Amino acid sequence: MKFAEFELTKEFRDRFQQAVDEHDALFIQESLRDVNSADVASLLYEFNGEEFKYVLDLLSLDVQSKIIKDLDSDTRKKYLTENYNVAQLTPIINYLDSDDAADILNELPIKTSEEILAQLDAVLKSQVIDLLRYDANVAGGLMAKELIKARDYWTVVQCIDEIRKQAENVSKFYAVYVVNDQDKLLGRVALQKLILSDSKTIVKDICEGDIITVETYMDDSEVAEIMRKYDLESVPVINVQGQLVGRITIDDVVDVITEQAEEERQIMSGITEDVEEDDSIWRNTRARLPWLFIGILGGMVSARFMGFFEGEIAKITAIAFFIPLIQATGGNVGIQSSSLVVQSLANPGFVDDGLWKRLLKVFSVALLNGIFLSLVVFIITRITFGADPLNIIVSLALFFVVVFASFIGTITPLLLNRLGFNPALASGPFITTTNDLLGLGIYFLTLHILI
Amino acid sequence: MKFAEFELTKEFRDRFQQAVDEHDALFIQESLRDVNSADVASLLYEFNGEEFKYVLDLLSLDVQSKIIKDLDSDTRKKYLTENYNVAQLTPIINYLDSDDAADILNELPIKTSEEILAQLDAVLKSQVIDLLRYDANVAGGLMAKELIKARDYWTVVQCIDEIRKQAENVSKFYAVYVVNDQDKLLGRVALQKLILSDSKTIVKDICEGDIITVETYMDDSEVAEIMRKYDLESVPVINVQGQLVGRITIDDVVDVITEQAEEERQIMSGITEDVEEDDSIWRNTRARLPWLFIGILGGMVSARFMGFFEGEIAKITAIAFFIPLIQATGGNVGIQSSSLVVQSLANPGFVDDGLWKRLLKVFSVALLNGIFLSLVVFIITRITFGADPLNIIVSLALFFVVVFASFIGTITPLLLNRLGFNPALASGPFITTTNDLLGLGIYFLTLHILI
Repeated sequence: MKFAEFELTKEFRDRFQQAVDEHDALFIQESLRDVNSADVASLLYEFNGEEFKYVLDLLSLDVQSKIIKDLDSDTRKKYLTENYNVAQLTPIINYLDSDDAADILNELPIKTSEEILAQLDAVLKSQVIDLLRYDANVAGGLMAKELIKARDYWTVVQCIDEIRKQAENVSKFYAVYVVNDQDKLLGRVALQKLILSDSKTIVKDICEGDIITVETYMDDSEVAEIMRKYDLESVPVINVQGQLVGRITIDDVVDVITEQAEEERQIMSGITEDVEEDDSIWRNTRARLPWLFIGILGGMVSARFMGFFEGEIAKITAIAFFIPLIQATGGNVGIQSSSLVVQSLANPGFVDDGLWKRLLKVFSVALLNGIFLSLVVFIITRITFGADPLNIIVSLALFFVVVFASFIGTITPLLLNRLGFNPALASGPFITTTNDLLGLGIYFLTLHILI
Repeated sequence: MKFAEFELTKEFRDRFQQAVDEHDALFIQESLRDVNSADVASLLYEFNGEEFKYVLDLLSLDVQSKIIKDLDSDTRKKYLTENYNVAQLTPIINYLDSDDAADILNELPIKTSEEILAQLDAVLKSQVIDLLRYDANVAGGLMAKELIKARDYWTVVQCIDEIRKQAENVSKFYAVYVVNDQDKLLGRVALQKLILSDSKTIVKDICEGDIITVETYMDDSEVAEIMRKYDLESVPVINVQGQLVGRITIDDVVDVITEQAEEERQIMSGITEDVEEDDSIWRNTRARLPWLFIGILGGMVSARFMGFFEGEIAKITAIAFFIPLIQATGGNVGIQSSSLVVQSLANPGFVDDGLWKRLLKVFSVALLNGIFLSLVVFIITRITFGADPLNIIVSLALFFVVVFASFIGTITPLLLNRLGFNPALASGPFITTTNDLLGLGIYFLTLHILI
């Protein structure tokens, strides 16, 4: 026997490309025989839609559906719309779980997806129609309809019969969900409990009642947090009437968590589209330009602003020397502050102590940091530039910049969060630019007053 | 029946604090009766170690062990070392799974943990001793020893007997692992398959052989990526001889993924310690100072550097006006570039196309961005400041800054990764500071040559 662990090397990819070019069906089928669908998906990213379809057509429908499921959404959309027609897609989609089928139909042009939907197997069709009602980022959009449902008055043996019937449709199940005649969720029976119980036991008697559920309208990040916190491998989804309508498995939630982390990284680094390094040059450029442009505008405003102090700068050139110091510190302090707020907002068990208590603490930390850094700067400038009133001005301005940037860095993510935006935006270039301007303003204001 | 979903309100916390102050044991026991241990842990963060122990002592050992498991590592270490002795800790640890027991013993002072270890139940003791050999951040450090193991020649009925025997020790199991007499892993039987098979079936005949495994020395992020990619809820861990030594469940991996995202956010925003907003003022200050200090040093170097160009600045004051523009753009471009590299390094199915191909692409994107931004700046300065040679100098310098910052932003995370450091460091303040200096250097060099 062997353990399926597949390493995608450049050599293999090149050899595979050659096989695709030469339509070497035998090599393709042989080399992909024991490879996991997720690995095949990774491999095929490198190929165009036509080549992709050529390779997939050599495989069984079951495997085709798995590979398509494992593609990322953008690539899949491109491949499927450009290279497949309704007749080709329908049998593949019939092999998918309801949640994946709904996701894919959502990506396709509405006409195509309607035509496919009309031809799907009856059960899947009604499941998918139900799922299509939900937004992608709520529990209803994450859940699958496939699950094992048992009536509370059934015996263990009836349960096992139901499992046998459903075994083909439901992969990855960990528990049987117990409902009453109105489909209201009463609890669950873990598989291990089912195995260990006598076959005549009534399900109600071994049902664990006190379980965690999520409701269809819950935000996906909330679902992720609940499953993470309570260490769940799956969670039942109920509607407002308390009826069992689906279940979410941890693998979908892991994807949610990974995507959120990636999104946050992109926001923090000022990239506007969901772009990856291997996307086209043009797309990479386009994703970066908007934020760079904001930075440029900020820089131009800075330039205009300093124009007002042209006289001072001409008189004391050294004023200009400390602009980078003031700006960098303002930016760094702002990002640190907002990042801590973003983190605490995302934190489990976070209890809001109220705005004032929070600001008081931020203010204390800022005071300590400000005093220390100002002192350091005063000492260094005193040594390297000699005694000069500018020493005091720079140190004092730096102190104010630290305090103000902490304040802005704290208040902005809170405000964004209150308004329903992603608070991580506050760690992005927009706020950095604001803080740059603010720092400059404070510096020249201090100068103006003290000189 | 009710569904356990607990919302931690300020009101409840205050009422609970009062009950703790008044030693109102009845209220505490009543109000925590149906609350999940993870929620109790969240609630108790707000209390000091003595209060924590008072509350826990009112609960059963089983519940105590779960709550202690659910605490974050720092808090747990503090509570346990300050308020518990060996005699009090031993029975609690006896209730834990081997992986959690090993984690907690690792946090305690070596003398305490040795004494507890000596008194643990024999089975748990040997399991924990085995686990303590591994670093926390490899598969061996993540795995638990609790699992259901079946010999390949067993029948289904023997398997179920084994499950019955182990049911008390092993929570959350999804499959029976099949081994030969030398404990070499041969495959797994999913629970559902076991349920549906005839009781006389030989395990070998229903065993799924082609399964994914991880080895003890594998990095935790690698394990996380494998479980994410292949949608696994648990993965068996083997040693170099191919023997089954443990298994990792997805809940532990979800924690790894969440922690990594948090660590990356802290690195990117320049926070050196694992700090949270509700940590002490002093700790918050200390975690921020090192990076701020680097920024300050960078600023001081900038100041010294500009000192060389004092003559130029005195002659053309407007030179100073564009320093923020140049620096901000350099910083933004650098962070964008490094962030994309970090992302692609973390990406599943990432195939390294070689350094040169990558740099060529980065260079193309930088050229496009550089040309566009320089043009914009040229036009704006031409309009707002009038015709002046400085327009051309600023635009040209900006172009070079974009290109160089892209290069530095790309090469730094690659280099860090090659050297075994976290590539996300490249998006942190250290590199931003370097890019600030670089931008300034390019600007004044261009000035010097063209004026």
